[in-house]
Amino acid sequence: MTKTYARLTPLADSLPATVPFVGPETQERARGRAFAARLGANENTFGPSPKAVAAMAQAAQDVWMYGDAENFDLRSALAAHHRISPNNIMVGEGIDGLLGYLVRLMVGPGDVVVTSHGAYPTFNYHVTGFGGRIEPVPYKNDHEDPDALIATAAEVGAKLVYIANPDNPMGTWHDAGTIQRMIDTVPEGCLLALDEAYVEFAPDGTIPELAPDDPRVIRMRTFSKAYGMAGARVGYAIAAQDLITAFHKIRNHFGMCRISQAGALAALQDKDHLAVTLTNVADARHRIDSIARRNGMTTLPSATNFVAVDCGSDAAFAKSVLDALIEQDVFVRMPFASPQNRCIRVSAGRPEELDIFAAALPIALAKARG
Amino acid sequence: MTKTYARLTPLADSLPATVPFVGPETQERARGRAFAARLGANENTFGPSPKAVAAMAQAAQDVWMYGDAENFDLRSALAAHHRISPNNIMVGEGIDGLLGYLVRLMVGPGDVVVTSHGAYPTFNYHVTGFGGRIEPVPYKNDHEDPDALIATAAEVGAKLVYIANPDNPMGTWHDAGTIQRMIDTVPEGCLLALDEAYVEFAPDGTIPELAPDDPRVIRMRTFSKAYGMAGARVGYAIAAQDLITAFHKIRNHFGMCRISQAGALAALQDKDHLAVTLTNVADARHRIDSIARRNGMTTLPSATNFVAVDCGSDAAFAKSVLDALIEQDVFVRMPFASPQNRCIRVSAGRPEELDIFAAALPIALAKARG
Repeated sequence: MTKTYARLTPLADSLPATVPFVGPETQERARGRAFAARLGANENTFGPSPKAVAAMAQAAQDVWMYGDAENFDLRSALAAHHRISPNNIMVGEGIDGLLGYLVRLMVGPGDVVVTSHGAYPTFNYHVTGFGGRIEPVPYKNDHEDPDALIATAAEVGAKLVYIANPDNPMGTWHDAGTIQRMIDTVPEGCLLALDEAYVEFAPDGTIPELAPDDPRVIRMRTFSKAYGMAGARVGYAIAAQDLITAFHKIRNHFGMCRISQAGALAALQDKDHLAVTLTNVADARHRIDSIARRNGMTTLPSATNFVAVDCGSDAAFAKSVLDALIEQDVFVRMPFASPQNRCIRVSAGRPEELDIFAAALPIALAKARG
Repeated sequence: MTKTYARLTPLADSLPATVPFVGPETQERARGRAFAARLGANENTFGPSPKAVAAMAQAAQDVWMYGDAENFDLRSALAAHHRISPNNIMVGEGIDGLLGYLVRLMVGPGDVVVTSHGAYPTFNYHVTGFGGRIEPVPYKNDHEDPDALIATAAEVGAKLVYIANPDNPMGTWHDAGTIQRMIDTVPEGCLLALDEAYVEFAPDGTIPELAPDDPRVIRMRTFSKAYGMAGARVGYAIAAQDLITAFHKIRNHFGMCRISQAGALAALQDKDHLAVTLTNVADARHRIDSIARRNGMTTLPSATNFVAVDCGSDAAFAKSVLDALIEQDVFVRMPFASPQNRCIRVSAGRPEELDIFAAALPIALAKARG
């Protein structure tokens, strides 16, 4: 009989070894071939500010030093940027890392958390990982459903209710007033986790005013999307000071990469690059829409750096289209839940990547149809 | 009456907002003045390989992509380096991050963990943060005490027993045979966490043979010390495949910085730079010893990139010396627990930093003596 030395907790023992997303490199290794167009992870293929790249190259020489555990310079710059106090800001290892900390702070075995069915799987992974129970709410017309989310949160006594605005994977969004009403109606004892990863891409009128001392909501932002620094792992949370302070109970204080800290600081200051990126992304969204329509498909309006392309049939058909795109070296993904999984999700890539997508799509459709 | 929205778990609620170490930047801000010699965090002031710096500068341009969630290239290179299988290796966000994952996997409320009194506080922080109870074992002659650690683990039914070899904060070490005997006597139901952060600095005969399928031990290594990349946050664990796989249950799959992945890969391949670093560090240790002796002090033998300097009196005296060094812009730290806290801990810095230390020490001693 084998002896056991590593005794996992009952919770850890019950969890599957899993991954919320299969990464493109993993797929490339399985395929034995690189992707020609990397349009599946909503990365910003237009890249980071050259000033951020230069700052990171410079910081690489100083990487023998641990990063500043307080993220002081970056928090100060973010505070100035948002005109709020640095005490309302927590910088962390991407929104993924911050969501993990938030869930750890609030969710224990049996606690209930409300989110949309088919929304961000990494959030669900954290909730399950700490023993929480997900209460899913259906999308409504390809939008997350704020009223139903709040009503369900009240009904089940949820500790957390999650919404992404704009939404991933559909790209749809609600206006600021709708989200503010959501904040205003969060039931007592429940916190709204408002994931604004894509908010820089959204039209005016999408972002409720920052009221950082509002105890009802924590807002998550990132350098992974509009700032083009997904690989650097820099996100931040804006919340009431009590809640921000609670992160110090459990966070990995020296967990931030020093190079990433320097890069984010420089990226934040390069407003021109951000403006160019937003234009590039808007152009790419239009281009994806044109490509789709030329192939007899429609797209969903998007306030993000990706577009949900409606394949016009069921999930099996969308999956066939997706598979046939991947076969042609185009990395894309698709929503997990019905009926959103009639779509494929295409990131707003560079013109040369969208050329490849444009060439591959009709072939993929023909293959899926026949 | 204020309404509550963020309801923390009872465990999170019970934890203090804390930090295992106050970082040098935090101290600099409090002092209003930069340090002239950064010798307190056991950073490798000789810096990373120029090849690693170049690889990181290159990777900064590609930072719009998430890092490979499998850390495949780095794990493969590490596997070749150690002549083991990549399946026995887990790459993570520094040893701090990996210890956090390990504790989360194994330690729940009421579980007991054994470590030395005054050993690595970040490990204790993780244990407490998951509700575990620390059972501390005294040092013996400024060494961690393998026999007492194992005996205590058996006595209290510990799930984890931690030792760093070489040790931090004392720099002392045990030979491979002693550590192997520790592995061989770990009680059933208990895992040995062997922190080998400093092992590259140790003399031959310190490292027990890697037996990666041994279920009794998990070994932790890092790029923060000998490889001079503390700010990059790259560590790795070597353990039986079952235990490595368990990390996939809870880890932040896309948590690694892409730039750091590239840097670690390049650093691992630059064996010449590592050899030069080891020589530089050995020279610096000798220099610290000379400086100490010139001031009538002794040092402990060290197998790390720092030296514990015995101030020859009690903790209060050592603290006075430390304060007077900091006042002179020399960042150093000291052990937390008695009687080790009669020492100050000085990192093996560059000659110009040790010049500053050499000039500051007699003044600090005079001041401490009154």
